[in-house]
Amino acid sequence: MPKTHKITANWLQNMAFETKINSHRLIMDASSDFGGQDLGPSPKPFMLVALAGCTGMDVVSLLKKMRVDFDSFSIEVEGELSEDSPSRYTKMHVIYIFKGRELPMNKLEKAVKMSEDQLCGVGAVYRKCMEISSEIRILS
Amino acid sequence: MPKTHKITANWLQNMAFETKINSHRLIMDASSDFGGQDLGPSPKPFMLVALAGCTGMDVVSLLKKMRVDFDSFSIEVEGELSEDSPSRYTKMHVIYIFKGRELPMNKLEKAVKMSEDQLCGVGAVYRKCMEISSEIRILS
Repeated sequence: MPKTHKITANWLQNMAFETKINSHRLIMDASSDFGGQDLGPSPKPFMLVALAGCTGMDVVSLLKKMRVDFDSFSIEVEGELSEDSPSRYTKMHVIYIFKGRELPMNKLEKAVKMSEDQLCGVGAVYRKCMEISSEIRILS
Repeated sequence: MPKTHKITANWLQNMAFETKINSHRLIMDASSDFGGQDLGPSPKPFMLVALAGCTGMDVVSLLKKMRVDFDSFSIEVEGELSEDSPSRYTKMHVIYIFKGRELPMNKLEKAVKMSEDQLCGVGAVYRKCMEISSEIRILS
């Protein structure tokens, strides 16, 4: 039997749903423009969050193995929406932003590339159906 | 300029990242097996949650327009993981589960089909790169 992940989302009221991911509770909702009450995040951007978390954890873990220390690290993921219906992401751009002293760009690039090419299962799926571009920024 | 969505995930410690979707704060983390502390959901299943929320909100909103009342509604999304690396979803199965008195199956089917074929932007992306199957269950 192949391994699977399963989630259940239970309707609460109006547009709100409650779900759990490995015991952590989450509410999703729409804004009032779409009949919701904004009780939680809207669903589509979870696609961006999934990519940020997946590649972010790869990079943190690789840089730790490479003994690269940084003061801060953040990832921006921007998804471009189609003009036609249904409104959906047609491309994504990922920005890896590091802050630290004398950070070795070659190692940062290596870690990002390993995540993109070999490790990140979210990016591997998205890349099959849209363009995913990325860049690395070092803040001093 | 095309419309975009953007999220930023800030690294906290170990494998934990903090992010926000329309002002709602979220923590992601890995389990201790993967160097995390399980402070929040792991990232990959957000792909399942995005689909559940997106299609769920479509269906709730369509059934309201069709004047179909139900007592409860939940959506299960199961993602099958690849055996090869990187571990990624290769197909998904969505189960729409309704509870209520004399629910009209034809209207439930119509709402689900409209979400699948026309409205749900998350499913529209996933369907380009994997098989998405679905079924409807009515609990009495």
